[in-house]
This record gives sequence, structure tokens and C-alpha cells, in this order.
Amino acid sequence: MIPHADEAITRDGKALILAYDHGLEHGPVDFDPNPATADPERVFELAGHDAVTALAVQKGVAEAHYDDYADDVSLLLKLNGTSNLWMGEPDSAVNCSVEYADELGADAVGFTLYGGSNHEVEMAEEFRDAQEAARDRDLPVVMWSYPRGQGLKDDTAPETIAYAARLGLELGADIAKVKYPGSPEAMEQATSMAGPTKVIMSGGSKTDDLAFLQTVKGALDGGAKGLAVGRNVFQRENPEQILDALEAVIFGGSEPREALREANGEVHDAALD
Amino acid sequence: MIPHADEAITRDGKALILAYDHGLEHGPVDFDPNPATADPERVFELAGHDAVTALAVQKGVAEAHYDDYADDVSLLLKLNGTSNLWMGEPDSAVNCSVEYADELGADAVGFTLYGGSNHEVEMAEEFRDAQEAARDRDLPVVMWSYPRGQGLKDDTAPETIAYAARLGLELGADIAKVKYPGSPEAMEQATSMAGPTKVIMSGGSKTDDLAFLQTVKGALDGGAKGLAVGRNVFQRENPEQILDALEAVIFGGSEPREALREANGEVHDAALD
Amino acid sequence: MIPHADEAITRDGKALILAYDHGLEHGPVDFDPNPATADPERVFELAGHDAVTALAVQKGVAEAHYDDYADDVSLLLKLNGTSNLWMGEPDSAVNCSVEYADELGADAVGFTLYGGSNHEVEMAEEFRDAQEAARDRDLPVVMWSYPRGQGLKDDTAPETIAYAARLGLELGADIAKVKYPGSPEAMEQATSMAGPTKVIMSGGSKTDDLAFLQTVKGALDGGAKGLAVGRNVFQRENPEQILDALEAVIFGGSEPREALREANGEVHDAALD
Amino acid sequence: MIPHADEAITRDGKALILAYDHGLEHGPVDFDPNPATADPERVFELAGHDAVTALAVQKGVAEAHYDDYADDVSLLLKLNGTSNLWMGEPDSAVNCSVEYADELGADAVGFTLYGGSNHEVEMAEEFRDAQEAARDRDLPVVMWSYPRGQGLKDDTAPETIAYAARLGLELGADIAKVKYPGSPEAMEQATSMAGPTKVIMSGGSKTDDLAFLQTVKGALDGGAKGLAVGRNVFQRENPEQILDALEAVIFGGSEPREALREANGEVHDAALD
Amino acid sequence: MIPHADEAITRDGKALILAYDHGLEHGPVDFDPNPATADPERVFELAGHDAVTALAVQKGVAEAHYDDYADDVSLLLKLNGTSNLWMGEPDSAVNCSVEYADELGADAVGFTLYGGSNHEVEMAEEFRDAQEAARDRDLPVVMWSYPRGQGLKDDTAPETIAYAARLGLELGADIAKVKYPGSPEAMEQATSMAGPTKVIMSGGSKTDDLAFLQTVKGALDGGAKGLAVGRNVFQRENPEQILDALEAVIFGGSEPREALREANGEVHDAALD
Repeated sequence: MIPHADEAITRDGKALILAYDHGLEHGPVDFDPNPATADPERVFELAGHDAVTALAVQKGVAEAHYDDYADDVSLLLKLNGTSNLWMGEPDSAVNCSVEYADELGADAVGFTLYGGSNHEVEMAEEFRDAQEAARDRDLPVVMWSYPRGQGLKDDTAPETIAYAARLGLELGADIAKVKYPGSPEAMEQATSMAGPTKVIMSGGSKTDDLAFLQTVKGALDGGAKGLAVGRNVFQRENPEQILDALEAVIFGGSEPREALREANGEVHDAALD
Repeated sequence: MIPHADEAITRDGKALILAYDHGLEHGPVDFDPNPATADPERVFELAGHDAVTALAVQKGVAEAHYDDYADDVSLLLKLNGTSNLWMGEPDSAVNCSVEYADELGADAVGFTLYGGSNHEVEMAEEFRDAQEAARDRDLPVVMWSYPRGQGLKDDTAPETIAYAARLGLELGADIAKVKYPGSPEAMEQATSMAGPTKVIMSGGSKTDDLAFLQTVKGALDGGAKGLAVGRNVFQRENPEQILDALEAVIFGGSEPREALREANGEVHDAALD
Repeated sequence: MIPHADEAITRDGKALILAYDHGLEHGPVDFDPNPATADPERVFELAGHDAVTALAVQKGVAEAHYDDYADDVSLLLKLNGTSNLWMGEPDSAVNCSVEYADELGADAVGFTLYGGSNHEVEMAEEFRDAQEAARDRDLPVVMWSYPRGQGLKDDTAPETIAYAARLGLELGADIAKVKYPGSPEAMEQATSMAGPTKVIMSGGSKTDDLAFLQTVKGALDGGAKGLAVGRNVFQRENPEQILDALEAVIFGGSEPREALREANGEVHDAALD
Repeated sequence: MIPHADEAITRDGKALILAYDHGLEHGPVDFDPNPATADPERVFELAGHDAVTALAVQKGVAEAHYDDYADDVSLLLKLNGTSNLWMGEPDSAVNCSVEYADELGADAVGFTLYGGSNHEVEMAEEFRDAQEAARDRDLPVVMWSYPRGQGLKDDTAPETIAYAARLGLELGADIAKVKYPGSPEAMEQATSMAGPTKVIMSGGSKTDDLAFLQTVKGALDGGAKGLAVGRNVFQRENPEQILDALEAVIFGGSEPREALREANGEVHDAALD
Repeated sequence: MIPHADEAITRDGKALILAYDHGLEHGPVDFDPNPATADPERVFELAGHDAVTALAVQKGVAEAHYDDYADDVSLLLKLNGTSNLWMGEPDSAVNCSVEYADELGADAVGFTLYGGSNHEVEMAEEFRDAQEAARDRDLPVVMWSYPRGQGLKDDTAPETIAYAARLGLELGADIAKVKYPGSPEAMEQATSMAGPTKVIMSGGSKTDDLAFLQTVKGALDGGAKGLAVGRNVFQRENPEQILDALEAVIFGGSEPREALREANGEVHDAALD
């Protein structure tokens, strides 16, 4: 990591990245709960919310829509990714060059590394090329650091997430995106391993509002600098509301209950008492 | 996809692509029903029909004949392809560089991606190189998005075709060519996944006129922007007739029966009553 | 194929290519019947015969001798090839770049494609690079189109040879060299698949004069544009005689018996009556 | 090796390299005995000690901190490395190009070669590229020469270490870092094989002060030119003390007991009598 | 091969190459009979002997010492090579680029090809790159042509050595280094296959003086143009003596007994009567 390199996609040193590459990674099934979310424009609109520091998409989605939102949205172009149609040791195709990401107006690039996969060595070398090309263009680098594969028994064990975070530091990521290891203490272990590389929590599948915000708060308490979130925002009826609450928690330091209450506005919500 | 990029091979936003790479992909057996169709010139003549927005061929066929037809035919150069002489997980050789396609006068390039194959990652990376080189030359990109391989049980299942269409969007194709998933509703699912990437239906093996046109109509009703067709046109006795009918259905909005009747001209055809 | 591209190694649209890469492909055993034939100079001398439109050799043989024969011999540099010392799916090393072939004074380049091999995809991509580099230098391209490998049951079946010839057309060869499929009718099937790509027959192992010439005549009757021959010429006692006869059959349209009689001169040969 | 090339990371022809890539190679577990050692800054501080001739780290750690220590610390950028999350024949990803190492201010580059691994050929070719790029930039090259893999029964046997040292010479390393082969005599065998390539001993896991210094002295007696050490320094309570002692032994020629006594200062230490 | 290209490392068309890459290929065990031979300088001194037309070493040994001997020794830089620590089909890492060999002052380059190995195709393609780069720099090319691997039953059978020599010619080597096939007649078969490519005999493991010289004489009688020798020279007590004798046999045409007697000087040696 390069000090201050991440500033194009952080605010006050913190990040809330809206991630929207589910159409590639998981396929249409991820849009089933709310089919309208298959439309990227909906998510570009959401990404204009003040809370969002960057929107992560694949090349084709950026080509189609980014021009219309360039003033309001910071683009984190995800360079690799693959479908789940095939089987085998985790791997990820490099779908976009850094040069082209830059042409598309990217403010940062993202790259998945499956540490522990039999393809780790190959992926790390692809990461090197991307990372150094990004340095040439002053683009910050976010690593999706997701250990998985034949050698991994538990891919959210505290020691695995701590190792994942350290890989971000050692290999030169400015931000490492990791799964939540289950507790603030475990997240603390991970962030202490990452040195000055910022660690952000990966949002995971959709849960209820309060539980989700409490997890985010736990991650922050453990030293995480924010969140990358997809389904937990875009699959909701009222995604702006949860973004309001996330903004309060991440940037405003609010408690989850309080943040939710404010985000819900006047409506009294018994569940939050 | 880049807005408007496909205009060199569409008309009013719609496409009728005549595909003629069967000699490579399937071999001489595909010409057996009508041996004269092995002669590419016959197909270049056909491609001059007003209905046809582009002719898709491999490099060698373009080298041999395109110069004679450049005024009347838009060339969609298919960059990869392979014989069916060998066995193994689906893969496709990149037989032509984008640079050379451009030299040959191509108006667009085509590329097969076998999502779900063990070679998906490698093919996606080859697609990246081709797609970005095409962008440099302002050539639209058509993806033959055909999930198949070890991991696929049913390669025309609605959810598979929907995923195929989404891959076109995510990876940066301007047009995604997919198999017909069996119903307008299933095609609707696919086209809604592709965002602004145009989806066109792949013609498949030869069927009777009306059934074929009704399938095409079903695809259009499901949001498809046209058709890529080979044997269903070039193997017919009267290929111009079916092209007339396709033109009426795709660009004129006609009903299949009506379109056929008009294409057949004065001749009364009881089967269409 | 590019119209007229082959003219550097054809005469009146026909070709008689003397092939001499047996030392690499089969090893010294191919010279056993006549050890003096191991000396390349002997074959360069032969290649000066009027009947021969090109001599096909590997890089090292060209380096050693071509300078001395450049005025009288057209050089077809064979770019790939391999020994038969190893076992495994058919493959062929690219032993010479097109750039260097050009420096050596090549008039054309040759390339083997083993359609049907598990290495077909890789070989086709190597062919692409060679073919496009040859186009840049206006060098005609001859494909040794030899389906073989795990997937092939009968590598001289008519449908296999027809597919082989088609691969030449589709992938951009100016001339496709195929095995003789057994009859003029089968050769006709192959040549009709190749469109304007010229098909020439591969000479095979040594047979007697008349049988050999009759096979060549059969190939020509089936639309072949000539012959690539090695052992059937250079292993004979009187190779010039068979070249005289081949010239009469291929370029003069003679019948095999007549051609042989003339080539044998005054000597009456009962076997030809 | 190039005579005098190593001078940027040696003093009087000797080296004490502080190695700190455990976070990548072994993961957080290596910091467990003293969690504060996970912080790279602590190690950069240590590396400012007079005894240390270079600090070896991966790219990301250098990016984050080297600018602040460039005046006091010589940087040995380790170009390859991998996590131990995966299983399989030993291999190592090339995580940093020589070009970028140079941009980061590296004084030398380091590269692991697992001789004996099924990946040896590939790693040696990667080493070639790195070594020649380093020559272009006048950067000395340190090889971590660690035979291991399927073919190796005992990776610290004297003949294995001797072979490891020889690989350093033959392949062009200026310094070869090898495991201690167990005795000064065995080290003598290794250093005599390396010709003018300097051999340094690899520090291994943490042992007690005197035993450690005696091993170092044994290595020096066997012709080694110094030490690369990680945990045996940074995991101690008083790492400066052991660095003082190492300096006395390596550069001052002191006996281990004497060196330790001086390093411990006034405090009388019965164990050293 | 290019006529006269080899002159930088031959005298009167003959070669005596001192080979010294045993430290890489076999490891320290090859120096056991005479440990002082592990020191490259000793061999560089020897290579100054008038009989020696070139010294073959790996990159690192050349870097360390060649500058001091450049006036007296012709350098044949061996480009590939590998340790015997690993197991598997024969292969060899390319440890030095031709560009760098040239920078180091090489007069020629050497390259091993294991014909018959499953890696033959890959090695032949690496040879192509090296050979063509050497042509660009007017550096002669010596092929270590050593058939071995899964497909080979007897790697010194006359037909195998003859094939090995032919590979040298076909692929563009100026000199082919082969094992001695057992008799002058078998060597004659090999040299007749190599055309103008010079064949030299590989020295093999250490034998007694007279037997060794008689084998060399047998190779010359079979048309070989000299010898590449390592252990049979450098492991002797009096290596200059055997070089004197080899000079007499190779360049002076002496009989082995006579040559040995002269080389041994005044001393009467009963064994030679």
C-alpha cells in the first residue's frame, strides 16, 4: 500500500463500497428476491447516495452506464471475476486490463485473490501485473482477499481472515476486503495484521437491518475502515434507508439502533426500543 | 457494451446475422442436405439481401471473398472457432486477431464464450484481449454466449440462457447471441438480465418455415433484438423467401403467417390458412 | 486464402512441391532405402527440375544450402515439425518464425495442423500467428492439414479428408495439403469443400511408378491442383524420370501410361502396354 | 555473480540481512510469540541498527514504509513468495517486478529457488528474467536457494546444501542464502562449491542466544559471509542486544560468549561463564 | 547451420570444447574425485591451453570469471540446464538469454535438446527463439542433442545418435554434440545424417587415457569434427597432458598411442608400447 493512495474511494479514511458484480459471479439467481435489481441503472442511482464512496462493477456494466453517472459516482472497476457455472479449484478470469479501466474513468481497481487455491500462485502473479499497472496510473488497489480452495477447511476462521488481511499488506493492496471473522476481536486480529493497509468487511448475504448494522459496528470496533456491500443494500425495498443508517454508523460513529431509528425517520419502530 | 456501438451491424436497433462458420465448427456434414451450400460465394450473395445486417464468417472465408462483396455486405468476423474432430472440454481456438479482422474490412467481431467449461477462465481472458482491441478500433463485439461443459446439465434451461445473456453484459459484449430458451417468457428473463446489451437468438438446426418464424417471433416478444441464423436459411431451396419473411417479422413487426404469405407471393399456401 | 497469393509456388495454378522434412519427422530410417538421399544437396539439385514448383524443407536445411540454389528453386519453408522419438497426442514444434523464414529467402511458408488432436486448439492459434505474419510479408501459406489423434478413427476417410480441406479454407491457407482419400470422387468431395483454397495431394510412401501416377491423376480428376511428394521421388534410382512423368500428368494433362512412356524415353517398357 | 556487485548490501564483504517476509510465507502464526512484531515499523526501526546491512521485505511492506527509512536502511526487495495456505509442490509467485523494485528504491533483489521441486525449471526461468533485469539496473541478486519438493529426502543434508550453494553460483546470484547444514565442515563444503558467490546462512526458527550465536560462528568458520535472520531477532524481547552480539561475531570476529557478554553490558550472566 | 558460422569456436574446422556445467547438471558429486576442480578458475586456466577452442559454462560462472580470461578463452555460453535434484521427464531451464550471453562476451551459445522427451516440443520452441536471436548477433549455435525420456529405450543406439545428429541439421545448429554411439561406423552414420552441420562427440565420464583417446580417434574416423569434454580432462591430475594428446589427435592427426607418448614427454610408458 502507498500512504494516501486510497483517497479517491474513501472519505475521512473510511469506505463504503457498493459492490455489484453478482450478475457475473452468481448469475441471475442473486436478483431473484427483487428482479428489478438486475438493472444496473438502479444501482448506479443508489451509488449516488452520499454514503457510498465507490461502486464496484465489471467492465461491461461500466461501459454501458458509467458515463451517465461519472459526476456522482466513484468507479471501482473490478478487474477479475468469473461465473459459477464451472467447477474446480477457485480461479478468476482477468476480464479487464488496468489500461482500459483507466480509459473507462475508473477511480480505483479491484482484484480477487483466492489464497489457498491451487491457482494462488498464478492469481498472485496476475495481481502483480494489475497492481503495478495501477501504480503507474495512480489508481488505488482493492484486494478481495478470499482464501478458499482445496487447502482451506474454514474460510472465515479468525486465523484465515487474519492471513487474508496480511496478504493485502504484503502484496501491495491499499485496501483489503475480507469476510467478517465473527467478532470484533477476530476482526481486530485481522486489522492488526494488515498494518496501514485498510481492511474492510465484505457484506455477505442479506440479513435483517439491525443484525447487519451490528455486524458492521463490530467490524469497525475491530479496526475495520468500512464495508463493501451488495445484496444487503440493493435487495432491500428501501435501500436508501439502510444507506442512511450505514452512513451514520461508519462515518458518524452512531450506534446501530440509533442510526436505524434516524434513518427510519419519524416512524416509531418498536423493534428498535 | 458501449451505447450505439452496434450500429454497424444493426438496423433500427435490430439484427439479422447470417452465420456461416459451419464448415469449421461442424465440418462438411452440415452441407450434406444441399452440397452447393459449401460454396461460400452462394452465402455471400444471400448476405446481400436487405434483411441481412451482417454476415459472420471465419478469417479464411473473408480473405477469399469479402473484397467482392464489401459494398453490399457487412462483415462480422468470427475470431475464434474450432472443429468438432477432437474431444474434451469445450474450447475454441482464436483463429484471427482483431488487427487482422480490421485489415480485412470487418465491421464487427464475434467471439464464442463457453461459460461453464473448464476453459471458461482462459476463454474469458482471450475475450478480454479481443474486446479491448475491438474497442481501440471502434468495432462492435458480438458474444456467442453458449454455456456448456462438464458443469452444465441443460444448456438451454431458462436460468442458463439468462446467465449467458448476463455474461454478455458483464464482460462487455454489445450483442449477446444465445440459444432460444424455449418460450417468450424465458427469453424475457434473459433479455432483462442483459441490460442494454442486445440479445439475439441463435437459429439452431433447420425446421419448417412457420415453426421457425414463430420461434423468432417468440424471441422478439421476449425482448430479443433479432436473430443469428445459418442452416435455417442457407439450407433452404429458396433462402431469399425465408429472408423476406424474416425481414417482415424482425424489422416490420409482421405476424409469422402473414409474413410467410407475403414472402411466398401470389402462391396460395393452404398450410398458412 | 487470398486470391493469387499462391503464385510464387505454383505454375498455371498448379503445384508440384518436393517435400524433404523426413529427417526431422521420421528420422534416418526414411533414408535407409537409399542412404545418399540423406544429403540435402541431392534434393536441392532435384528441386531445380522444371516440374518442381517449390521445395519444402525445415529451417536448418535452408540455412545450409538455399543460398546456392536460390536462383533455381522456390523455397517453401516448413515452419513447424517434430521428431517421432516421443509419444503422445500429435503436436508439432514451431521451429522457425515467419520473420526468419523471410530472411532466409522463403517464397512461401508451410504449417502442419493436426485437426482432431487434443493439441488442435493450440496448433490452430500458432497457425494464426504464422498465417498473419505471412500475410504481412506477402508469403503464401500452405497447410499440411492432417487430422489425427485420439478423436480420429480413420485419418484418410473421405469425410475426414473433406473436413481437412475445409479447415484449410476456413483458417486462411492458400493451399491445403491432404492425404489422398482413396478415389477421385472422394477427392472431389474434399476439393469442393475447400472453395478457392487449392487442394494438393500428399505423396505418401514409395509405390511403383504407374500406380503412383495413376493416384496423382485420380487426385487431379477430383479437382486437386497438384502434389506434394517426397519419398516417391527422392528415393528412386531415377528421380528425374518420375519428375518428367509428373510434369506431363500435372501440367501437361497426359495420361499416366503415356507420361511414363515419354519419360522413359526410347526404352520400350512392356509393363506400360 | 559479478565481482563487487553485492557491495550495496554488504559491509567489509559480509552481510547481516534482516528478513521479514513471514507474514506472507507463514502467516500471522509467526507473530504469535510477540504480536507487536506484526507491525512492520518495528522491524524497520530495528533495521536501522548498525549491524544490519539490509532489510528483506515484500513489495507491499516496502511501499508502506520504506520512504520513511530510506536514509537508514538498505532495502532488499524479495521478488517472489507465497502463502502456506495452499498445498502442492513448492512454488513461489513472482509478486514484484525488478522495474518496480527499483522504483521503490531497492538496493538489491531477492528470489527463492526451490531446486528439486517439480516447478524448478519454471522457477529458474523466472529467476533468469529477474536476474537479467537486475543486472540492467546494477542491483545485486540474492538467491534463497532452498532445495525441496518431491525429489528431496533431506533438505539440510550437507550434499543438498552444497548443491544449493552451487546453484547460486551457476545461475548468477551474487549471494546465496542457504540453510545451515549442521556443522562448519558441511558449511565449508557448501562455500567451496559457490566459488566467489557469497554464501550466507539462513537463521531458522528461534533458539536461545548462545546456541544461535554459536551456529552463526560455525557458519562463518565454514566460510559463510554472514547471516539472514528473522524470528531469531525480531521475536526477542531485546532484539538490539542480539544484533549487538551478531555484529561482534560477524564483523568483529568475536567469540559468541564474549560477544554476548559485551552485548548484555554490565549485567553478569552466569550462564555465559 | 550457416556455412562458416562456427569459426569463432573451431580451428581448421575442428573443435575441442571444454565443458564445465557439471556443478549445475550433476551437482557437487562430480567434483568429489578432485575437490579442487569445483573452483571455476582452475578450469578457466585450463581453457587457455592451445588445444581448447571454447569453454562451455553457465551464465553465473561466466559472470564471475570470464572478464579475466577473455583474451585467452573463447566463451561458449550454455543457455539452458537444470539440476538433477528433481525427477520427471527430461527438461531444461533456459537460464540465460542470448542478449545477455552476448553482453557477457560469448563467442557462441549452447542449448540442450532432449529429443524424445515429452518436453521435446517445448524445448524445440525455446531452441528456435535462442537460435534466431543468435543469428541476429552472428553467434554460432551448438546443440547438445541428447535424446532421452519416456519414449527412448537406448539413448546411445546408433540409430538414436544418427537421429540426434540430424536434429542438429534440421533445426539449425552449427554444431551438434552427441554421445559416442560405440563405433566409428555408427559415428559415420550420424555424421552422414548431419550434412554440413559439424558433429562432435560428448566426452562422457572419466576413463583411462588411452581408451579415451582411442574413442576420440574412432569418432574422428567416423567423421566427427572434434570433442566436447569435461570430467575426462578436468578430473585428471595432469589435465594439460591429456589436452596435449587430444590436440595431437584432433588437430594433428596423430595416432592415440603416439600422441600420448609425446604428451607424456621423456617418460617411458610401458603401457603404451
